[in-house]
Amino acid sequence: MSLKSQHIPRATIQRLAVYVEVLENLKRDGSEVISSEHLARICAVNPSQIRKDLAYFGEFGVRGVGYYVQDLITSIKESLGINRVWNCALVGVGNLGRALLRHKFFKQRGFHIVGAFDCDPFKIGEVISGLEVVCSRRLKEKVQELNIEMGVITTPPERAQRAANYLVEAGVKGLVNFAPARITVPAGVYVEYVDFFHNFFAVAFNITLSEQISEE
Amino acid sequence: MSLKSQHIPRATIQRLAVYVEVLENLKRDGSEVISSEHLARICAVNPSQIRKDLAYFGEFGVRGVGYYVQDLITSIKESLGINRVWNCALVGVGNLGRALLRHKFFKQRGFHIVGAFDCDPFKIGEVISGLEVVCSRRLKEKVQELNIEMGVITTPPERAQRAANYLVEAGVKGLVNFAPARITVPAGVYVEYVDFFHNFFAVAFNITLSEQISEE
Repeated sequence: MSLKSQHIPRATIQRLAVYVEVLENLKRDGSEVISSEHLARICAVNPSQIRKDLAYFGEFGVRGVGYYVQDLITSIKESLGINRVWNCALVGVGNLGRALLRHKFFKQRGFHIVGAFDCDPFKIGEVISGLEVVCSRRLKEKVQELNIEMGVITTPPERAQRAANYLVEAGVKGLVNFAPARITVPAGVYVEYVDFFHNFFAVAFNITLSEQISEE
Repeated sequence: MSLKSQHIPRATIQRLAVYVEVLENLKRDGSEVISSEHLARICAVNPSQIRKDLAYFGEFGVRGVGYYVQDLITSIKESLGINRVWNCALVGVGNLGRALLRHKFFKQRGFHIVGAFDCDPFKIGEVISGLEVVCSRRLKEKVQELNIEMGVITTPPERAQRAANYLVEAGVKGLVNFAPARITVPAGVYVEYVDFFHNFFAVAFNITLSEQISEE
């Protein structure tokens, strides 16, 4: 699979992540092949959508067979650059930060949180999941020492920009921001926002809508 | 604002959630009006996109002025059905469940987690953020007693379907599933999946892509 495709829509990346999850569950259950119709049904998308999403990376699927589960997992992971380990630094050891540090799926999926940082002197030195919390001012030194490429921001919103600044100055090229605040970064640094409130909004909206329809 | 619009794309709902976040931060900082260009810049979208998203709900903005911050917040919230309190039940008191129970933003945004459920006898009776963990078998009774409309699933993946079944049997009409597993629900129940791995995938992908381009 080539990564030379200039632009992959983020909705496609979102669906590719779902395909990987579903394929890995299928593999765990012993499936070796899956038809595009069956995969589409589990992922709740059209079979043509799956073919279109995979077409960004090349030709997949075998006529009359479908997809080889393991091959497809390998290909998607390779194409997304997630067929290797990514060392991450987490900044902000609050409730959410602690939960992520203890979340076993990060390691399983290749994202190793190897550094935990906070500026609160009461948190520095604390050990969470075998990781000692370090002062955020030492980010630069630690990023180099631990070969960290990605930053995870779990600070309160008002401290997200400062955390981003520390991470960018330390040389990190990509950030996943869980704090509910927009942040500014220089060109060449990539930011993803995790906002699960829009999922709550969508549920609220759909319940409201269905109640209105049933009242009509 | 009318909710009669039959289908609002989920990308629109996702962006509306960002607009609300940004507008609330602006309001906190004392802004009363904002131009669509300025709002667009902070949200990192095109001004025409904002106008298009808001057009689902009616006419907004004042020529030569822009948007009145408070009015726009009120209108978006009303249109999404989030101008009121939604009582939620959380099932699965692990690390992520605990972090969500302690997350102050839920209450601020109108999503009140009023029940915490787990089937682990060692967790039942524990009090987290003033909430006593209750056996999942008591969901039905509690959903009625506490007027719960929404379920939040934070179980391990293999227990997500069972949690969904309990919640649906109890009468909950919408679910936000944080467990990395697809779940099946009857028609009339709405499910949202929270999967922040796709954000990590997107960062990994974009770093990989930019490194490949710089090597060329």
